[in-house]
Amino acid sequence: MGGIYLDHQSAMPLDPRVLEFAKTCLVEDFGNPSALHSVGLSAKTAVEEARAKVADLINAEDSSSIIFTASATEANNLAIKGTALRNAAKGKKILASSIEHISVLNSMKELQKGGFELTLAPVDGMGVVDLSALESLLSKETVLTSIMYANNEIGTVEPMQEISEMVQEKGMFLHADAVAAEGRVPIDVQKDGIDLLTISSNDMYGPQGAAALYVSPKVKLQPSLVGGGQERGLRPGTENLFAIAGMGEAARLARLEMANESERLKHIRDRLIEEISKLDEAYLTGHPTKRLAHHASFRFSRIEGESILLTMDAMFGIQISTGSACSSRTLEPSHVLLAIGLKHEEAHGSMVMTLGRDNDPSQVSSIVGAVNQTVQRLRMLSPL
Amino acid sequence: MGGIYLDHQSAMPLDPRVLEFAKTCLVEDFGNPSALHSVGLSAKTAVEEARAKVADLINAEDSSSIIFTASATEANNLAIKGTALRNAAKGKKILASSIEHISVLNSMKELQKGGFELTLAPVDGMGVVDLSALESLLSKETVLTSIMYANNEIGTVEPMQEISEMVQEKGMFLHADAVAAEGRVPIDVQKDGIDLLTISSNDMYGPQGAAALYVSPKVKLQPSLVGGGQERGLRPGTENLFAIAGMGEAARLARLEMANESERLKHIRDRLIEEISKLDEAYLTGHPTKRLAHHASFRFSRIEGESILLTMDAMFGIQISTGSACSSRTLEPSHVLLAIGLKHEEAHGSMVMTLGRDNDPSQVSSIVGAVNQTVQRLRMLSPL
Repeated sequence: MGGIYLDHQSAMPLDPRVLEFAKTCLVEDFGNPSALHSVGLSAKTAVEEARAKVADLINAEDSSSIIFTASATEANNLAIKGTALRNAAKGKKILASSIEHISVLNSMKELQKGGFELTLAPVDGMGVVDLSALESLLSKETVLTSIMYANNEIGTVEPMQEISEMVQEKGMFLHADAVAAEGRVPIDVQKDGIDLLTISSNDMYGPQGAAALYVSPKVKLQPSLVGGGQERGLRPGTENLFAIAGMGEAARLARLEMANESERLKHIRDRLIEEISKLDEAYLTGHPTKRLAHHASFRFSRIEGESILLTMDAMFGIQISTGSACSSRTLEPSHVLLAIGLKHEEAHGSMVMTLGRDNDPSQVSSIVGAVNQTVQRLRMLSPL
Repeated sequence: MGGIYLDHQSAMPLDPRVLEFAKTCLVEDFGNPSALHSVGLSAKTAVEEARAKVADLINAEDSSSIIFTASATEANNLAIKGTALRNAAKGKKILASSIEHISVLNSMKELQKGGFELTLAPVDGMGVVDLSALESLLSKETVLTSIMYANNEIGTVEPMQEISEMVQEKGMFLHADAVAAEGRVPIDVQKDGIDLLTISSNDMYGPQGAAALYVSPKVKLQPSLVGGGQERGLRPGTENLFAIAGMGEAARLARLEMANESERLKHIRDRLIEEISKLDEAYLTGHPTKRLAHHASFRFSRIEGESILLTMDAMFGIQISTGSACSSRTLEPSHVLLAIGLKHEEAHGSMVMTLGRDNDPSQVSSIVGAVNQTVQRLRMLSPL
């Protein structure tokens, strides 16, 4: 690929060790876990081993609490619609933070059309959920609250334990979308008091095509898909053996390596933040310290994030993002940046850098130099 | 793996040429197709090339008619629930054959609970849809009819063109689940008059984790998942690049090689049918000639299919199936075998062999010998 890839939030390379581990599932040990013969049984064993490794990563009480899906979007849909619809008799209020991923917000809005009452909890200027507002919005009828573990666009890590205590005391079930946080922050669903948690394979260097929803034994779900009885009937469809086995191995490696790797990336991140913040009219977005170790995000006055992205890519071979890849093809400003109080024109000048294993400290000066030249060039061209 | 694998309907090995083609998407060219930089654009190109190859396989008018999903189960759910719910104002009757895959039947039953009127069209003793019954069941209010292209448990290929003419004349939209037929029978959605068609990647030696729903330009769908705008908003979630690129290449190879390979497998199949039918109280299930080239299915009196499967596997290293892998962990007799008129005790003695590239004519005598010994042994042990 060449260049410097700084868009690990939108896609990550497969860890070669994970490929080595799981590739046998492609050509040789390719069975269907529902088949009763030896080839099927060995496939079933591979799926269950992966399930146990994923359970370990987030300290789930039991591996049967892990439901595999094909993507985090699917897991978020299942968590939110599945919980609310199945438990609607207990309450018709649903609650989310205003900076959730679009698959969470759109699932909530679909429920709203179906008669649920949706409220969005505000965040402060650094993207931290406003706990007193959250408390006042929660009620006994709040059947589901969804707060992301950390935000993908501004890197802010939310105070999950305080949030879960509040939801346990005043509301009902808590879902956390942990896609941005997984593999970077130690997650413990029991200690954190989380009832449903979404993680994905590719966000920890596993294959695309697998994700998992942790479902606490106390939560009953309504499935979105119907078919065979796979995944305890909650998610039918023949298992994607390669992706699931790979996700398990990626989870095992993440658990072992996360602390050291986060420390390493934090060092690079801090240097990027320090240097880029010195540039003219450049501002960090998100929290300065309660943020993901691999995440540096900024806004620049008087220029467009999309122009920054294209110039950095074309002139310097550096890939960055200007927000969530899921919505970056629309021209709307990011709902996350608006939620932290930026004006429309401020939100348009956003740049997100997310680091990974292939980045190292020696790249910092090239990156900062490229940003500096890009911003100067664009400001010269800008009519503003 | 050793032994002789005869369960290609439940899982197939990945074609090494497909792995070679698509593996670059795993570690090197792993971008997110929604990202705007060069890495994202090259991922987007790979997805669109795959879409065109899949469209070619089934002669879709335009590659934009192809929607990628993660599994055939998901594609069937989207086709059936998505079409019926979106077009409910036009009619609330839905129709399926009595031998559909469980993901089709369960999607239909979910709609039935939601107020749609479901009717199942009968099949004859060989599994061919009863056309005069189908005609009498169709009406202007029949918003969706779902008939599989060929059946996975008994191999019978349905008269799709006659069915589609009937649906076009008397009903509304026709969905065909072509998972068993794809790569074995040439499919032409335009000539066949099919409005929605499900195919999966692994059923033509592609990676697991990708499937496609063909949607004719005249059909409007309601999505099942909500999130980002991927797949024209009909199926959000970051694309599984490896699986999709691999599915495209598998479709290209299937189109080129299907005719010769089907001819080769038909020869093996016919010898298996000829020899096994000679065994005591052994009967072919499904149609003797209008059947898939790779498919040989039987029933044996006075013994259990599950015992046949386990004995063949343990004593002879031969993997067969006793029905659909999706429901083979339940103790219920197959709904397909009941639909062709078998009694419960007859349906329990089922054996399904599905051939693939790794099978050759030299295996026939070992297979037949193993079946013979297995059946004799089980009958000796049988209390019946």
